[in-house]
Amino acid sequence: MQASTTENKNHLILTGDRPTGPLHLGHFVGSLRNRVKYQHQYQQYIMLADAQALTDNMDNPVKVHNNVLEVALDYLAVGIDPAKSTIFIQSQIPELTELTFYYLNLVSVARLERNPTIKQEIVLRNFERDIPAGFLTYPVSQAADITAFKASLVPVGEDQIPMIEQTNEIVRRFNRLVNKDILVECQALVPEIGRLPGIDGKAKMSKSLGNVINLGATPAEIKAAVRNVYTDPLHLKVSDPGHLEGNVAFTYLDAFDQDKEGLQAMKDHYVRGGLGDSVVKARLEGILQDMLAPIRERREEFAKDRGQVLQMLKEGTMRAREVAAKTTDEVKAAIGLKHF
Amino acid sequence: MQASTTENKNHLILTGDRPTGPLHLGHFVGSLRNRVKYQHQYQQYIMLADAQALTDNMDNPVKVHNNVLEVALDYLAVGIDPAKSTIFIQSQIPELTELTFYYLNLVSVARLERNPTIKQEIVLRNFERDIPAGFLTYPVSQAADITAFKASLVPVGEDQIPMIEQTNEIVRRFNRLVNKDILVECQALVPEIGRLPGIDGKAKMSKSLGNVINLGATPAEIKAAVRNVYTDPLHLKVSDPGHLEGNVAFTYLDAFDQDKEGLQAMKDHYVRGGLGDSVVKARLEGILQDMLAPIRERREEFAKDRGQVLQMLKEGTMRAREVAAKTTDEVKAAIGLKHF
Repeated sequence: MQASTTENKNHLILTGDRPTGPLHLGHFVGSLRNRVKYQHQYQQYIMLADAQALTDNMDNPVKVHNNVLEVALDYLAVGIDPAKSTIFIQSQIPELTELTFYYLNLVSVARLERNPTIKQEIVLRNFERDIPAGFLTYPVSQAADITAFKASLVPVGEDQIPMIEQTNEIVRRFNRLVNKDILVECQALVPEIGRLPGIDGKAKMSKSLGNVINLGATPAEIKAAVRNVYTDPLHLKVSDPGHLEGNVAFTYLDAFDQDKEGLQAMKDHYVRGGLGDSVVKARLEGILQDMLAPIRERREEFAKDRGQVLQMLKEGTMRAREVAAKTTDEVKAAIGLKHF
Repeated sequence: MQASTTENKNHLILTGDRPTGPLHLGHFVGSLRNRVKYQHQYQQYIMLADAQALTDNMDNPVKVHNNVLEVALDYLAVGIDPAKSTIFIQSQIPELTELTFYYLNLVSVARLERNPTIKQEIVLRNFERDIPAGFLTYPVSQAADITAFKASLVPVGEDQIPMIEQTNEIVRRFNRLVNKDILVECQALVPEIGRLPGIDGKAKMSKSLGNVINLGATPAEIKAAVRNVYTDPLHLKVSDPGHLEGNVAFTYLDAFDQDKEGLQAMKDHYVRGGLGDSVVKARLEGILQDMLAPIRERREEFAKDRGQVLQMLKEGTMRAREVAAKTTDEVKAAIGLKHF
């Protein structure tokens, strides 16, 4: 496996989050857990995308500011190791805005308006005709982030694949323009495990829907959340046969229960009838409490010295900036923007 | 007048050119001449807008690159004094792209599409549906340039007034958002003398129309250009009465002839009849040769040491960058983008 590890280390991953709130179980399943693995396999850059978060939070910059540190604490709490992963703050790397600026000349307005992800998000946010220009153009900013680090792998959900396509279009257009392979095309890295539903059974766990379990949740919060987890509305009496489809308690158990045999036995019993929701939820709660306790404790430990966390972010940002500055320098030189 | 001079020095002018070709008589009349005056009255920043030039010249970045120095030579040749005016290269100040990036969140796409100047220029360039995003958003980049220096006066033609309005909208929106007067509104400074027509009589002297007299034109080029200056197509014989309207020879004389009485006598004679175009053109040629000779000589002198011109640009750019960085710092701090 040595050869393959070496090969992997040639891959660079760019990933990250918009710091608009604390991270939750959905992030854990969809990305954080993978990052803890990836940091051993690849070069990994993790971006606190505060500049991007402002594209739809310009009315509340304080929220974005404060969540930069909160999300960094979540990273450390789940085991992302700043010695292995480079964690950085997007807004502190001006080169990313320079690349965005020049890439804007390589994309037409019509092309941006056709982006299916953007189209969806415009509807979601009720922007209609008042789309902020920064929002319409944020795929270009993403292309800047990805290419600045010459990332070859970008972990994204299925719905974000158009963003990767947009990035690669810019890469090809730029390289063709300057007749030199300066920028690198990237591949989407779609996680095997899909999205975790909210505790209410809605497709997406989302802070704004209030259906989340935060990574830093207290034991009491975990208990209360599990109590509210959506199960089977037809399962009224213990003796009734239960259904597994859409039953969030079992979806979560599928995601987190390591005892697959025990879980299967429980499922069989539930479907047969004679197993109450409270037993299923007790099992789920136990697993979540056990899983989240060390995360919460590490989080509290790191939170005691916020200065140290900031220092870690500063060092990561400096390292990341060096890489981004090198690419930006190449890009600017190739389009005649070097004079001194 | 001391008081008024002091007051003026509180005004800061931002002006500049897209370096896409050598400057010509049209620039001289419309802006360069004024800048030579302004530099004694105001703080003046003159921007070589290479980054902006790329918004519609991305296919020919070498042209933009090479013209940065050519235009700088034109500035020095007409008497812009780098000890009095700060001349700088836009692309060398990354802070301008940072401001652009954040201001994009303050302007809707619909608002940009309504900008009359942009609308006109889109038609002019045959962009139709393929408008590069960088072109649609360049008024935001202009707002970044103007506000980075907290410029209070911006010399523009009538047709550019919508750009100033767009800038001031961003200024007001930003200051309201952060509840603090960080950015400064600016005023358009519209020159008294309007636009100089091309030698062919077309409304605008423009390199792409091939109807210009460059500031660095040789005596032979000036002679040839004057020979081709559009006069009165009805003035076929010397004895015919001539017309002044639309007669470019007289328009140029109006702009450059200091001997107003002599010029008036010549006009009267021309209108009466009996005065050949060649006599009018000889007068015009003499004036242009006299006016352009010292400019050309100074240009040639400065062109001998391009390293020194680059050094001047470097120093101006460093000075300008300090100012822009200070504003950017204030802007970023106000929207929560300061962490270290």
